[in-house]
Amino acid sequence: MALKLKGIPYEYLEEALPDKSPLLLELNPIHKKVPVLVHNDRILPESHLILEYIDQTWSNNPILPQDPYEKAMARFWAQFIDEQIITVGFRSLVQAEKGREVAIEEAREKFAFLEKEVTGKDFFGGKTIGFVDMVAGSIIPFCLARLWEGMRIDVIPEDEFPELNRWIKNLKDIESVRECIPHREKQIEHMMKVSERYKLA
Amino acid sequence: MALKLKGIPYEYLEEALPDKSPLLLELNPIHKKVPVLVHNDRILPESHLILEYIDQTWSNNPILPQDPYEKAMARFWAQFIDEQIITVGFRSLVQAEKGREVAIEEAREKFAFLEKEVTGKDFFGGKTIGFVDMVAGSIIPFCLARLWEGMRIDVIPEDEFPELNRWIKNLKDIESVRECIPHREKQIEHMMKVSERYKLA
Repeated sequence: MALKLKGIPYEYLEEALPDKSPLLLELNPIHKKVPVLVHNDRILPESHLILEYIDQTWSNNPILPQDPYEKAMARFWAQFIDEQIITVGFRSLVQAEKGREVAIEEAREKFAFLEKEVTGKDFFGGKTIGFVDMVAGSIIPFCLARLWEGMRIDVIPEDEFPELNRWIKNLKDIESVRECIPHREKQIEHMMKVSERYKLA
Repeated sequence: MALKLKGIPYEYLEEALPDKSPLLLELNPIHKKVPVLVHNDRILPESHLILEYIDQTWSNNPILPQDPYEKAMARFWAQFIDEQIITVGFRSLVQAEKGREVAIEEAREKFAFLEKEVTGKDFFGGKTIGFVDMVAGSIIPFCLARLWEGMRIDVIPEDEFPELNRWIKNLKDIESVRECIPHREKQIEHMMKVSERYKLA
């Protein structure tokens, strides 16, 4: 998403997780995770670090704000999504009925913070797409929401979260975002497989 | 440590955890954790975000490298310490004998990465103290090592980790670090209390 927004050409290699390629293990020996960015002879793991690197290396269409406080707050919300939203999302995926309900309730509590944060703004970044939009955009509408779609639960209903739903529409209006959205049915199917694989009793 | 290094005067308010003050809950309603930096009317939670904010606001004695790749790598190691070293450290604190041994063995495996990273350098940051040194310095020698001292286990013995031990000595040579080191006996006593409170069967 960031490379498209900046207009940087790249080659995209998909990993067929959970089977990790020898290349991935070589490039990211510590975390063994995607994504990894290879730029010249530099190897960069971890999504947020990659976004910061891309933004500092190519300065057009800035992703992070310049002001130190606003920058800290963008990182704060990105981290909130990465730590808290992903965690409850994963729990809602793998736990059995009772635990699942608890996880979904917690997810709604977390979404309430985001609903408040995006209120009155086109994007978390303000008038244009930024750091938090990319992190939240990759995880919420095109990943977790599809998981919940597969489970036939609407965790972010429009009447309860009007601002987040408006934000998702704004995201989809951006070409560089639209080009990155995974295929809907394929994504739902994938998430359901993950759910089966890690399901707890 | 960062404020001292930059020469910025500050007022330090200690929290008597686990009892959280109403002020802490007001300043950091989402995570409810220390540290929180208050600068003018700006409220900043999360240690790494605070370090980045301080470095960007006061540019003397830089904490982070300027180069985008080196900056990403500094953030990578800081994150590694925050996620992986703290996690195994906490497990070695609260688990019973067998689990404790496993956690300490894992801690040694993680320290091996750091040993390699600091080899041939005065600091993780190079010739001077930087981002990784501050993150690792707060957690390893003056927190986890003291916990293990209280438990009478040396997890970072000098013959196995000569470079990390040399780095700890270099850290202690810096006045702004020395001034931040918690009182040894008080710290050990505190860690042993935490251990008792969260101990697993």
